[in-house]
Amino acid sequence: MRVDGRDRDELREVTITRDFTKYAEGSILISTGDTKVICNASVEESVPYFLRDQGQGWITGEYAMLPRATESRNIRAAAKGKISGRTKEIQRLIGRAMRSVIDLDKLGERTIWLDCDVIQADGGTRTASITGAFVALIDALDYLLEKDKIDEMPVKSFIAATSVGIIDGAPALDLCYKEDSSAQVDLNLVMTEEGRIIEIQGTGEENPFTQQELDKLVELGEKGIKELIRYQKEALGDKAELLNQKEDDNA
Amino acid sequence: MRVDGRDRDELREVTITRDFTKYAEGSILISTGDTKVICNASVEESVPYFLRDQGQGWITGEYAMLPRATESRNIRAAAKGKISGRTKEIQRLIGRAMRSVIDLDKLGERTIWLDCDVIQADGGTRTASITGAFVALIDALDYLLEKDKIDEMPVKSFIAATSVGIIDGAPALDLCYKEDSSAQVDLNLVMTEEGRIIEIQGTGEENPFTQQELDKLVELGEKGIKELIRYQKEALGDKAELLNQKEDDNA
Amino acid sequence: MRVDGRDRDELREVTITRDFTKYAEGSILISTGDTKVICNASVEESVPYFLRDQGQGWITGEYAMLPRATESRNIRAAAKGKISGRTKEIQRLIGRAMRSVIDLDKLGERTIWLDCDVIQADGGTRTASITGAFVALIDALDYLLEKDKIDEMPVKSFIAATSVGIIDGAPALDLCYKEDSSAQVDLNLVMTEEGRIIEIQGTGEENPFTQQELDKLVELGEKGIKELIRYQKEALGDKAELLNQKEDDNA
Amino acid sequence: MRVDGRDRDELREVTITRDFTKYAEGSILISTGDTKVICNASVEESVPYFLRDQGQGWITGEYAMLPRATESRNIRAAAKGKISGRTKEIQRLIGRAMRSVIDLDKLGERTIWLDCDVIQADGGTRTASITGAFVALIDALDYLLEKDKIDEMPVKSFIAATSVGIIDGAPALDLCYKEDSSAQVDLNLVMTEEGRIIEIQGTGEENPFTQQELDKLVELGEKGIKELIRYQKEALGDKAELLNQKEDDNA
Amino acid sequence: MRVDGRDRDELREVTITRDFTKYAEGSILISTGDTKVICNASVEESVPYFLRDQGQGWITGEYAMLPRATESRNIRAAAKGKISGRTKEIQRLIGRAMRSVIDLDKLGERTIWLDCDVIQADGGTRTASITGAFVALIDALDYLLEKDKIDEMPVKSFIAATSVGIIDGAPALDLCYKEDSSAQVDLNLVMTEEGRIIEIQGTGEENPFTQQELDKLVELGEKGIKELIRYQKEALGDKAELLNQKEDDNA
Amino acid sequence: MRVDGRDRDELREVTITRDFTKYAEGSILISTGDTKVICNASVEESVPYFLRDQGQGWITGEYAMLPRATESRNIRAAAKGKISGRTKEIQRLIGRAMRSVIDLDKLGERTIWLDCDVIQADGGTRTASITGAFVALIDALDYLLEKDKIDEMPVKSFIAATSVGIIDGAPALDLCYKEDSSAQVDLNLVMTEEGRIIEIQGTGEENPFTQQELDKLVELGEKGIKELIRYQKEALGDKAELLNQKEDDNA
Repeated sequence: MRVDGRDRDELREVTITRDFTKYAEGSILISTGDTKVICNASVEESVPYFLRDQGQGWITGEYAMLPRATESRNIRAAAKGKISGRTKEIQRLIGRAMRSVIDLDKLGERTIWLDCDVIQADGGTRTASITGAFVALIDALDYLLEKDKIDEMPVKSFIAATSVGIIDGAPALDLCYKEDSSAQVDLNLVMTEEGRIIEIQGTGEENPFTQQELDKLVELGEKGIKELIRYQKEALGDKAELLNQKEDDNA
Repeated sequence: MRVDGRDRDELREVTITRDFTKYAEGSILISTGDTKVICNASVEESVPYFLRDQGQGWITGEYAMLPRATESRNIRAAAKGKISGRTKEIQRLIGRAMRSVIDLDKLGERTIWLDCDVIQADGGTRTASITGAFVALIDALDYLLEKDKIDEMPVKSFIAATSVGIIDGAPALDLCYKEDSSAQVDLNLVMTEEGRIIEIQGTGEENPFTQQELDKLVELGEKGIKELIRYQKEALGDKAELLNQKEDDNA
Repeated sequence: MRVDGRDRDELREVTITRDFTKYAEGSILISTGDTKVICNASVEESVPYFLRDQGQGWITGEYAMLPRATESRNIRAAAKGKISGRTKEIQRLIGRAMRSVIDLDKLGERTIWLDCDVIQADGGTRTASITGAFVALIDALDYLLEKDKIDEMPVKSFIAATSVGIIDGAPALDLCYKEDSSAQVDLNLVMTEEGRIIEIQGTGEENPFTQQELDKLVELGEKGIKELIRYQKEALGDKAELLNQKEDDNA
Repeated sequence: MRVDGRDRDELREVTITRDFTKYAEGSILISTGDTKVICNASVEESVPYFLRDQGQGWITGEYAMLPRATESRNIRAAAKGKISGRTKEIQRLIGRAMRSVIDLDKLGERTIWLDCDVIQADGGTRTASITGAFVALIDALDYLLEKDKIDEMPVKSFIAATSVGIIDGAPALDLCYKEDSSAQVDLNLVMTEEGRIIEIQGTGEENPFTQQELDKLVELGEKGIKELIRYQKEALGDKAELLNQKEDDNA
Repeated sequence: MRVDGRDRDELREVTITRDFTKYAEGSILISTGDTKVICNASVEESVPYFLRDQGQGWITGEYAMLPRATESRNIRAAAKGKISGRTKEIQRLIGRAMRSVIDLDKLGERTIWLDCDVIQADGGTRTASITGAFVALIDALDYLLEKDKIDEMPVKSFIAATSVGIIDGAPALDLCYKEDSSAQVDLNLVMTEEGRIIEIQGTGEENPFTQQELDKLVELGEKGIKELIRYQKEALGDKAELLNQKEDDNA
Repeated sequence: MRVDGRDRDELREVTITRDFTKYAEGSILISTGDTKVICNASVEESVPYFLRDQGQGWITGEYAMLPRATESRNIRAAAKGKISGRTKEIQRLIGRAMRSVIDLDKLGERTIWLDCDVIQADGGTRTASITGAFVALIDALDYLLEKDKIDEMPVKSFIAATSVGIIDGAPALDLCYKEDSSAQVDLNLVMTEEGRIIEIQGTGEENPFTQQELDKLVELGEKGIKELIRYQKEALGDKAELLNQKEDDNA
């Protein structure tokens, strides 16, 4: 029995609200249980210095938490004058995950920023950020398509992310903060709709784990991610169909 | 005729949502037109170094905007590694305004942080922050009262804030961004319910103004602030009554 | 009776020394009582990035205090690695004030820096900085005129600044540090020779004030500012005449 | 056939030199092929703030590269004034890995710093750092044991780390830089001698991978790590025996 | 013939004004030719962390230039967010020079800060800072003596500093900026009244020099420093006598 | 008798290893006694901003110590976010010393970076850095010559550096850390093969010294430097001959 009564393989309640703020090309509020993240996608008509004049685009992620997203207040990164290692890790992870399923050549010489700002944190903020950011990214790409700035959706696959872990000796899906802080093993997974792994980051600091346990965790994660992609598609409605069709064409 | 069809002395639509996030002792989402600010009040059981062992409390404000709260994306303060002068000005203003109506001796040796995070910006973010932060502050003080950490509400008066300006030669209340950026004169006012001035900050960089114009602007601001305090009271419901009563006792 | 024996509407002794240092295009030492500020104007033949190729100039202010300008030593901003919010506020104020009466189009694509360095502080350093910086600015503009870099003096009006406040319940002009730190209300005013308001920044953190009190403070400030402008004109001698004439032409 | 003629499951040549510098309690130079890292373990008789008075110790890692460890010179982190996200990730990884097999309660209230400074980089610097740091850690713990500061070796298991990846569609062990930069999948593994996983960090940014491929990579990594632990034991000589014995006692 | 008509062994005109600002325990304006430096000595009743509870005092120096002390404006260190290597070198030099002739045990557990702020720079600012700072230091020590905080003047000797260099192949004393920037050799000397060397810093970046040349430069510097000490004594008047007497007692 | 049994005029054992790492154009490990420094020379095909389009090259130095190069661990400059004054001083010294004997016009528009990283410190790290960096510089210049990027070796003279000091009242050559920290006088010298002085930096913070003592120290330093240059030549083998020949041509 889990701390919030869920089954071992059960996600928390998921809601994805599109057009949450009015200026961003894509703006999502995603909640998974009590974790709530605003994911804004912004199009910038230039690329970073290292990509100038190479005819391709770039996608990058930023992540932050409101000071009081958590049980006790955290000092702002800006007030400390530096970004924590944890935040940088998450920012790099979001960027890599998004780039992994986008054809950057078809994006053209522009950057899409994915700002994930956690307004309430109850575990799994990095994976919720990725799941939400992907929807914001689709909206921003659709904006570019509508404006005739790109010719086709440069998306190779749907992706989503979740955490899995070993609690009291057994695997569990989508850990809340209480579970996360007492888990023997903690693993974050980013996967495509087809169940292919984009990122796997697992740590058994408290308790090294076996390859058999790893396999069970990956399978549990895959189950959760496929459900999350169903929520993404539901939120996107017709736009998701458009993407599916394109994927069929590719097939 | 104003850009959004309002009368010269008309506020934008105001909504104040309490308990917007779950951890903060006070958590408000305030919107005035398209400006939306999350105002979280956090209680910390210690005071800054310069107040140690003096038997009094402290109230301080922080302010930030999500990168895409605006038409075009802004770089995060944390990424730049420094907080802009504008942000620091607003942080200091929020803190001074809150402290002006709170009896810090009655607060005890603790700090209340008021974090104002703008998620959508259409002008007047600093005044909306103050109006919202005051409600979050009341909720945090009420929390302390309920926990028997303070004996009575240490609040001297309701306060709210708004901006006024001279547009096309005539005064107008509660400027939206479009008006703000073309105003000849721009004035921010923080006032008590009784119409007393706590802060006045006016600039006529484009067009110096007369004392007569100043007077008209202050009157217009007072009208707006009294309306805003009605919204605050409505949001607070019974808690506002409690405060009123105490004020009567003081009279 | 005031702490230093002055009348309520009496300025401290003012001296303005021109050509205080030898390299700056304008270099002023201003003293108002025991407050002493070096105001240097420097011409730079370029404009900030955001103004490139727009055919107009820029004026900006910087402000700092020597570590021992005050009763007890302050740590240098450079040693702390960051500029305080108070300093940034004052820097922005000096810049806005100067720009408000200069025709930036006539200045050409160049920047004038106004460095205000307080060597002794006894209250009113920001207003003394503005009053002194304006004289340094005139000298720098005259230098440009003499060098045929500009065709005419791009000055719309004389400006000066002072502080007013409510002490022991009554208004007083030009507060010294002792008065300033115990004032119920503290208001800084920047005005033109014609009595028009450029900046008004008032705070009643200790004691909110009425509109009637505001009016009296503004009137008292106007009296002081007109005297300060007489000191500026005296210091400038013939150059002031030149400006007056031009203003007459405009009339 | 691999770029340097190795078999798919073949490590590069490994050498581990102890007592490389004279002051550190443990000082290792590890080379794996052309990757060379100095790993120094330093004992500090205090713990970080968050662990004060809890009767336990701490182990933390730092990582840096000499500016010319690589093909082209990198700017020093100190000159840039900030540590890159990549460096912070690696520092956190080294610390977690070391802590995972040490009984921090038995370490007492002291910190062991593991400084990993790369003097030559040809891929796999983070995994070489971990493999070398573990040996330096053993030497530092042995120093504490000899000085009677601890009663027994608080080591639960040997650990080492390596990278595996998919190159030209097939798995390969211990990637050099050339392989690493063209790999479709790149996975870093930290494991115990018993083949249990402490950290797994894999990314298929270029090419998402299947669970079957993940399994093959983990198996290949396990083979390499077991060889690396043999190198560690050889370098440690008798000290390794001591550890083994203790492990037997535990069994 | 030198650029300003001086003889090879001739100092520029020196003036030392005491009590230049009113709050510092010692406050000097020193000018050597067109170089002008404000040297303020501040007493702080505590010592740096590394000297706590050792019963001795500390003396430290800080140095800065006003942005427009020079021909063209320099960006403030605070605006850049870091102190230049040149400034740090000079700060360390001032501190070492002052400490070299003060008995820190007799100073008691307090710090004297020597803030040297250059308001006009025409070469030799670091040596003028030292010569002026020494006088400010004497005033601050005399203040401590008068307040009965110390029992005797803890000064071992007078010190002053000057620069010498090789210009057009021959040695010259007290270089102005024009000479300094074209000198083949540039040497800064700090010496006691007795002609003993406290600091020697010479560089022949443009033209390595012989030991014979070094000797001539040191002799020339000694001549200048003895004159500078006469100026210091003249400025100090009776206080200098007091010091001399004590030195006689020591003899 | 010295702490390590050496004669007063005896250097510690010197070894110079070339090609210590594989990527740098020049890579030296120098050890003088227990002081060990890696000196890497890196060629960059551009010059700093202030030298653009002037047809000349630049040489600059950087210096750092591994955290555990010393008896007790030092915090990394990158972790503190700033470079210490001592480090900046040494960096500037290395750069000036190298530039003093190189014809920058003949170098062409490129920069040579000399990174001196101390892996073990027992006094004299800055002088060992200079002695080693010069050899790395020669290797980098030879690389440019071989690649036909320069036409001739732009080297005017060999240089090396050492420290001398007064210990127990008498001069001594090449101080180790124990001697250095108790020396009455400490002097660093950089000289050419011909015994000309490039840099002299001496401080008698504990004990001012006479010109006679200075002379003896310089003579002792010259003896040591000439020996060090013999070690450099031995390490360079034929390359040194090449340089000598060129110097003969110049004669």
